[in-house]
Amino acid sequence: MRKSIVILGSTGSVGTQTLDVIRGLGPEFEVVGLSANSGIDRIKEQVAEFRPKAVAIVNDIAADELRGWDLLGDTKVYSGSKGLTKLAVMNEADMVVTAVVGSVGIEPTMSAIRAGKDVALANKETLVAAGSTVMDEVRRRGVSLMPIDSEHSAIFQCLNGEKKEGVRRIILTCSGGPFREWSSEMIKKASLSEALKHPTWSMGGKITVDSASLMNKGLEVIEAHWLYGIEYDRIDVLIHPQSIIHSMVEFVDRSIIAQLGAPSMTVPIQYALTYPERRENMALPALDFLVSNRLSFSEPDLRRFPCLKYAYEAGRAGGTLPAVMNAANEVAAGMFLEGTLRFTQIADSIRAIMDEHDPVNNPRLDQILRADRIAKEKTRAFLEKGGEKTGHKERKNNGAEGKSSKKNRTGK
Amino acid sequence: MRKSIVILGSTGSVGTQTLDVIRGLGPEFEVVGLSANSGIDRIKEQVAEFRPKAVAIVNDIAADELRGWDLLGDTKVYSGSKGLTKLAVMNEADMVVTAVVGSVGIEPTMSAIRAGKDVALANKETLVAAGSTVMDEVRRRGVSLMPIDSEHSAIFQCLNGEKKEGVRRIILTCSGGPFREWSSEMIKKASLSEALKHPTWSMGGKITVDSASLMNKGLEVIEAHWLYGIEYDRIDVLIHPQSIIHSMVEFVDRSIIAQLGAPSMTVPIQYALTYPERRENMALPALDFLVSNRLSFSEPDLRRFPCLKYAYEAGRAGGTLPAVMNAANEVAAGMFLEGTLRFTQIADSIRAIMDEHDPVNNPRLDQILRADRIAKEKTRAFLEKGGEKTGHKERKNNGAEGKSSKKNRTGK
Repeated sequence: MRKSIVILGSTGSVGTQTLDVIRGLGPEFEVVGLSANSGIDRIKEQVAEFRPKAVAIVNDIAADELRGWDLLGDTKVYSGSKGLTKLAVMNEADMVVTAVVGSVGIEPTMSAIRAGKDVALANKETLVAAGSTVMDEVRRRGVSLMPIDSEHSAIFQCLNGEKKEGVRRIILTCSGGPFREWSSEMIKKASLSEALKHPTWSMGGKITVDSASLMNKGLEVIEAHWLYGIEYDRIDVLIHPQSIIHSMVEFVDRSIIAQLGAPSMTVPIQYALTYPERRENMALPALDFLVSNRLSFSEPDLRRFPCLKYAYEAGRAGGTLPAVMNAANEVAAGMFLEGTLRFTQIADSIRAIMDEHDPVNNPRLDQILRADRIAKEKTRAFLEKGGEKTGHKERKNNGAEGKSSKKNRTGK
Repeated sequence: MRKSIVILGSTGSVGTQTLDVIRGLGPEFEVVGLSANSGIDRIKEQVAEFRPKAVAIVNDIAADELRGWDLLGDTKVYSGSKGLTKLAVMNEADMVVTAVVGSVGIEPTMSAIRAGKDVALANKETLVAAGSTVMDEVRRRGVSLMPIDSEHSAIFQCLNGEKKEGVRRIILTCSGGPFREWSSEMIKKASLSEALKHPTWSMGGKITVDSASLMNKGLEVIEAHWLYGIEYDRIDVLIHPQSIIHSMVEFVDRSIIAQLGAPSMTVPIQYALTYPERRENMALPALDFLVSNRLSFSEPDLRRFPCLKYAYEAGRAGGTLPAVMNAANEVAAGMFLEGTLRFTQIADSIRAIMDEHDPVNNPRLDQILRADRIAKEKTRAFLEKGGEKTGHKERKNNGAEGKSSKKNRTGK
């Protein structure tokens, strides 16, 4: 197995962990492309270590600064958002890891698929917004689309060697987030720092806020629908606060297969890179059932966490509605991260933007991207107009992306 | 899929549940042979319903009685223990289900494999006593050997689509039995009726007693070694009182795959019959995680439950020692079921008989059967001589065999 890999979003949480995994896997895995938004200190370190053929820096000024770096060597520097697409289609790449956050991941991912690259997808928004289009293209090009997400990797592993006809339902587990046991009243007053205290995973800002609102699980429901071709009625969400069972599949014979492990993104990342093989994961200790010795389950509360309900609704309606829901969430969650919103305004604005959207059925990619753009503008306008902004600015989103390595508080 | 099936031990717990499963699967599955020890009332009902080509009754007098039955029709009646072997090799059979209890299952199972039949094995003693010989023959004949046991079926399912090199260890779960929380002093005084109160499974007498002593788990460790070709150091036992996770496999990348479900033997029985397909199991409701909402784990205590330690020891030593250990257990557990032994005398006699045995390495089948026979005689002699028999006779072994359908007390 030799693989040349491009990482879109290499300085975020999933990106840096992907490089950790590649370092552990050894020389069979080569890094040929890296990208960052604007922070070039970290990308310099990565270039020095991995010597990629090319890097993409979205911010033009930062890209120019990198071009002037005297240790750059032969590495090409692309800039602007088109730079991501250039990386995604580069000849040298076998696989593209999409680890950027938000709908900005859609176009480069589609380009990679069209160029016949295998894709390891950590970007939830691509399938949420453009699932039908993406999956059509995956089938047409015969590429492999591997999920980098603990839940979808779990489901993928549970389906190994099984036939689709045998599947009865998918059970997506969910930690419940930091507000799992909070009342509606408390949630309404939740601060940014409270929302960022995830009980089991240490992750980037946006996904942590999505986990607090359960929108993250809603996005995953829609992703699961597209990845595994299964109707929404057969995708259930189960609260499992310890995050040890990463998801399950129930088969028609009532047998349930589950994937378990310590909460660490290195497992799904490595699995996506080495599938169908499994390689030693030296960095991670084995799960100790004498420590993680209590696993519990409960039902999600859609009243306190309406975002999950909205995601099922958008998924079932289809067309451009999931893209619009995702866009509204991206803007609202982003503003919450900037400290300019109350937590429950995230759900309120998603509801409002979904309600006023007139969905396009069977949309083309350009229609999806247009719906995304318009919905974002509308959400900003909605929140600037009617949103009761709070003034507090606790801390800025640090730009870290995706789940990070374990912060296992189970069994305590 | 059309399959013609012989069931050795059709009136026991696993046997009758196999017929329940076949009834549910419909006409693609045909019953061509049935057997019982001596109870012919139940076999008459089974003959009337399934119209097998032949039945075997081990007891000669009972066999003659059945021969005189005016509703017998075209069904042939074999008698004696050789009758089991005749059934096992009959031309009409595609698959033989071995659901008899004890080392009596070894010879007909070997005959079935030699005759090129697929085997579904509920008889633990076959692999424990003759694992090497049986697995050699399975490979030579290219037949399939499917486990009918919740734990081994779980492991089989967890290994679906996986490569053997990827396996790090097998984790056999274990309810802990009725004495899980009892002190050594209390266990010493345990009565038969207390030993028969299994917390999660309703099963035949012998396996229930084996579950109380953890010898059942010991036998399963040895079976797992042979079924999956994995060293004893990589087979762990984990106490899981709710019996919802039926076993697990940990892979080299630290990912763990588990199989879960309500405790019902219909799942592994049906899986063995329909593999590689899964069929609807209409009889069993889906596992409700809101009821089974607490799963817990702990370590087995080898001091209070030495039988598990003896099984690892016998398995590692190999040769005829596992057969001897099994034989001693069969006799001692049988006498405990007759009410003529203290519970801890089971472990004591196994220890004594193992200690005085001089193992034969790489034994042939006849050497294994001889070791089994001699060890049984020695165990009887040991217990009749030195055993401090108790006089109580609470109830006779009812002859029911194997695990029965669920008696799920989880989540209470």
